[in-house]
Amino acid sequence: MTETKFATRGDKGEVEQGSTFQPKFDADGLIACVVTDADDGTVLMVGYMNAEALDRTLETGEAWYWSRSRQSFWKKGETSGQVQQVVEILTDCDQDALVLRVRVAGNGATCHVGYRACFYRRLVRRDDGTTALEHAGGARVYDPKDIYG
Amino acid sequence: MTETKFATRGDKGEVEQGSTFQPKFDADGLIACVVTDADDGTVLMVGYMNAEALDRTLETGEAWYWSRSRQSFWKKGETSGQVQQVVEILTDCDQDALVLRVRVAGNGATCHVGYRACFYRRLVRRDDGTTALEHAGGARVYDPKDIYG
Repeated sequence: MTETKFATRGDKGEVEQGSTFQPKFDADGLIACVVTDADDGTVLMVGYMNAEALDRTLETGEAWYWSRSRQSFWKKGETSGQVQQVVEILTDCDQDALVLRVRVAGNGATCHVGYRACFYRRLVRRDDGTTALEHAGGARVYDPKDIYG
Repeated sequence: MTETKFATRGDKGEVEQGSTFQPKFDADGLIACVVTDADDGTVLMVGYMNAEALDRTLETGEAWYWSRSRQSFWKKGETSGQVQQVVEILTDCDQDALVLRVRVAGNGATCHVGYRACFYRRLVRRDDGTTALEHAGGARVYDPKDIYG
């Protein structure tokens, strides 16, 4: 276990209805974070924090994650400028997920593909029972090729 | 691997910008699902689906999950009546998370503690650097004790 500043898990009543923050990290030491626009509630992305990333986020007021693909800390916006200023963090009944309400700096996009939110496609059922994707609307904020070539 | 009706993962360009649905299930065979109110966007809960739960959801238009704690399928609302009618499902750039926009049947609550949304507490930093929880507002829709004793 990572040593953390957070409380260890207590009884169910306290977890669900108490005022002690005792987050549940999964077997990989991570907690799921739903990131929403603090002004209109749009779901921008889903990321994962370990205890240290959560602590950095609380200390700085800017969102830090743990990148599962790169296995490293990831300050959102460090290279892109799309820094997330954290307005509020909520947790759920069993304290195994977080909602971060944020304001996005830089060009205001969150997704590395150039859209404001990562969730820019919807599922559609075809007549044969298979599922495809289609764009859910919303123009790109920028084209990453213009920046990264 | 579970056999699924969904496509196997292709190249990054297709995953990120194509129309082929090729969801990424984690090492436990699960994908994270952010559930929002289709009308006002409130984040109601976070759940997890395996391929079969996702397929049941797509087939029936009502949300099915995989309960990690009980290790079993879980049709949301099967006992509580708080069934989720799925209005739209979105996926993100790397197709490893879903957003379900739903309308909740029954008494309209989602959380088993009795609140409309599971995220009814916010994190607050104390002066000593520790973190506590406080209610984020919103009355209980019902008291589970009234139903389950």
